[in-house]
Amino acid sequence: MKDRTLLMIPGPVEFEPAVLAALGAPTTSHLDPGFIDAFGQALQRMRAVFLCPDGQPFVLAGTGTLAMDLAGANLVEPGDKALVVNTGYFGDRFGALLERYGAQVTHVRAPVGGRPALGEVESALKQDQFKLMTVTHVDTSTGVITDVRGLALLAERYGVLSIVDGVCSVAGEELRASEWDVDVVLTASQKAVGVPPGLALLVAGPQAIDAFRRRKTPVANYYADWSNWLPIMEAYEARKPSYFGTPAVNLIWALNVSLGQILAEGMDARFERHRALSRACKQAISALGLAQVPLRPEFAANTMTAPLYPDDIQGTELLARIKEAGAVLAGGLHPAIRTKYFRIGHMGAANQGDLLATVGALEAGLSRCGYQFQPGAGLSAAAAAFAES
Amino acid sequence: MKDRTLLMIPGPVEFEPAVLAALGAPTTSHLDPGFIDAFGQALQRMRAVFLCPDGQPFVLAGTGTLAMDLAGANLVEPGDKALVVNTGYFGDRFGALLERYGAQVTHVRAPVGGRPALGEVESALKQDQFKLMTVTHVDTSTGVITDVRGLALLAERYGVLSIVDGVCSVAGEELRASEWDVDVVLTASQKAVGVPPGLALLVAGPQAIDAFRRRKTPVANYYADWSNWLPIMEAYEARKPSYFGTPAVNLIWALNVSLGQILAEGMDARFERHRALSRACKQAISALGLAQVPLRPEFAANTMTAPLYPDDIQGTELLARIKEAGAVLAGGLHPAIRTKYFRIGHMGAANQGDLLATVGALEAGLSRCGYQFQPGAGLSAAAAAFAES
Repeated sequence: MKDRTLLMIPGPVEFEPAVLAALGAPTTSHLDPGFIDAFGQALQRMRAVFLCPDGQPFVLAGTGTLAMDLAGANLVEPGDKALVVNTGYFGDRFGALLERYGAQVTHVRAPVGGRPALGEVESALKQDQFKLMTVTHVDTSTGVITDVRGLALLAERYGVLSIVDGVCSVAGEELRASEWDVDVVLTASQKAVGVPPGLALLVAGPQAIDAFRRRKTPVANYYADWSNWLPIMEAYEARKPSYFGTPAVNLIWALNVSLGQILAEGMDARFERHRALSRACKQAISALGLAQVPLRPEFAANTMTAPLYPDDIQGTELLARIKEAGAVLAGGLHPAIRTKYFRIGHMGAANQGDLLATVGALEAGLSRCGYQFQPGAGLSAAAAAFAES
Repeated sequence: MKDRTLLMIPGPVEFEPAVLAALGAPTTSHLDPGFIDAFGQALQRMRAVFLCPDGQPFVLAGTGTLAMDLAGANLVEPGDKALVVNTGYFGDRFGALLERYGAQVTHVRAPVGGRPALGEVESALKQDQFKLMTVTHVDTSTGVITDVRGLALLAERYGVLSIVDGVCSVAGEELRASEWDVDVVLTASQKAVGVPPGLALLVAGPQAIDAFRRRKTPVANYYADWSNWLPIMEAYEARKPSYFGTPAVNLIWALNVSLGQILAEGMDARFERHRALSRACKQAISALGLAQVPLRPEFAANTMTAPLYPDDIQGTELLARIKEAGAVLAGGLHPAIRTKYFRIGHMGAANQGDLLATVGALEAGLSRCGYQFQPGAGLSAAAAAFAES
C-alpha cells in the first residue's frame, strides 16, 4: 500500500513499527482489563508528555480540529471575549470556531511569516476583559513558532485563560504546560505524538476545569461536551470499566506504545533531538539558497521547515521530482502564499538518516528542475549541523 | 496484545485479517494519489452498502455518537420539533442530543424489550408538526429491532425527515435507505461495517441535504458542521486533493478494504448470513432454557442477542467463566435491567464457526456456574438451525 518513500510532511509523519503493529493488532473489547490498563496508562503518560502533572487528559476519536472544539465548546459561553494570537491559517480557524460558540473574538495578527510581539499582545489584553486567549504554538501553515512561555505569562498576569493549539508542537517543541501556567494544551495524534491520525488529545489544567464547572449555560456541542467524557477518563485512569462512546481501541493501544517510547527517550532529549533535526534542515535549506516563510530565524519552528520555492521553479513539478527521489513533502497551505512555498515535517520518529535522505531528495528534485546549485551543499550543511549538535 | 479469545460483543467485533493489515500498514499522506483514490472509492462503496445511491456520504474521525451529532447538529434548528422512536438507551441519547441543539423532543416509548407500534407512532405524528423523526434500528442496549421500513413510510407520509441510527445495523440488518425513503442513515465503523472503532459514517439523502441548505441559523457544532466536510467529501470522490482536517488515513484504508469485502459478499447474501447466525444463536439460547430481553421474537435483532441470566446465576461470574472458555460477551447496558442480562454480538466477519464456538463457551460457562441443562443442547440447536439455513 506504501512504498519506502519517506513521509516528511507536517503530519501524518513516519511512525515507529511498534506503533503500527499495535494499531493493526486484533481488536480487544473496550472493557477488556488489558485495554482498560493500557488506556489508563496512556492517560497518565499524557500528563508526563504534556508536562502537565496536575492536568486532566482527554482522548477522543477525532482530528486536531475536534481537539480545538474540545477547548472552545467547553470554555466559551455566548458573549465571552476571546483573544486570538494569530500566526496563520489555524489562528483564523480558532477564531471562527470560538465565534461559533458565541465568543466575541479579537485577533492580534502579524504579516505572513511574522508573529505578534509580546507588547502588541499585552496592549490588546489591556484594552478589554478577555476570558481566554488562544495561541497556535506552531502554525503548520507558516512554520512560525510563538513564544508560548511569554504569552502564557501575560495571560496569567491579566487573568485570562491560555489555550495552546499544540497540534504541530506537543512532544516535539519544548512546551511545559504546568511550569508555564498554560491552562489547556491540545494536539492530534499524527504529529510529534507519533500515532496515525484519528485521535484528538487535550490536557486541561485546574483553572480550565474550574472555568468549565462554573459555566452557566450547557455546552452547545454534544459530542465534545466534557461532562460526557470526564467520568470516562477518570474511570479508565482508575482502571475501572465505564462507557459513553466506544473508544478508538486500536488507536489507543498504539497511543500508549508511542507515549511509552516518548517518555523512554525523555522529554528534554526529545526536544533537543527536534532542535537538532531542525537546525540541520534549515542550514541545508540556506546552503541551497532557499529562503523561508518565517521572517526571522527565531520565528521558525523546530518540528517543520517552510522553504520558499526558488524563482522560476514550478512548485508542483519540484514536489513531484522530490517524491520520485524518495521523499514526500507538502505544498503550501496559507492562502496568501499557497503556491510560493513548501513544507517539510521533521518530527516524531524522524531521525538523522531520514533528514539526510530528505535533503538528498530535495537536491535531486532541484537538480532535475534545472535549479543551479553546488551539488551536495545541502547535505554538507546538514551533516555539519548534526556534527555540532 | 490479544489471545485467541473470540470477541463476540455488540461492537467492536472480530475483524478480517486484511482489514487489520490495512490498518497497521505504514501511513500515507492524506493527499497521496493512492489514498485519494482509496478514500474516493470508500465513499462510492458507502452508497452501495447503505443502499442509498443518491445519498451524500460522510466519513469523519469519531464515534457513533459523533455520527448522531452529524445528523442532529446539522438538521435541527432551535425550536424544531423532533419525534424519537425510543427502544432503549440510544433513543434516550438521541433525544438528549437533539435537545442540545434546541429541538423540542417527544418520545414514543415502549416497555423495556418492546417497541412502539406503528399506530402509536402515527398517533404522535398526527398530534404535532415534526421536522424530523429518529429511529434506532437496533438498540444495542436491548437487542430490539424496529420496523424501519414501516416507520420511514409513516415519516414520508407526514412530511417528516427520517433519521436512522444504524450503529448496530448497517451492513448487517436489511436496511434499504433509498427504496424505503430513509433520509439519513448513520453508523460507526466497529460494528457490522467491520473496521476497528474510530470512524463515524453517515449517508444523507437529498431531502436531508435540502433541509440542511435551507437552515436559517449556523450549525451550533463546529467540528460536525456539514459545511466544513461536504466540499472535502465531494473532492475526494472526484479524486481531487482537498483539506479541512486530516482524515484518519489508516482507518480509511481499512474501511475501503472492508467495504470491498462487504460488496463482494453482496448485500442480500450478507443480510441472509446475519439472519442465519441470529437464528442459530437464538435457538441455542432457547434450547439452553434462557429467555431474551426482546418481548417477542419479531422484536429481536439479527446482529446481536440479549439473553437474560438464569435465576440464581451471578452475571459477572458467568461472563468470566465464558471468557475462560474462549468468548468475550458483554454485560447489560440498559439501566433498568443492567444486571439481569448479557449481550452477544454476531455481526460483520463473524461466521458459523465463531457462533458455534461461542455457544460452546456459553455452555461451558453455564456448567461451571452450576446451571442445570442438557450438555450440548445449545450446540445441537445451533447446528440444526444452520442446517436449515
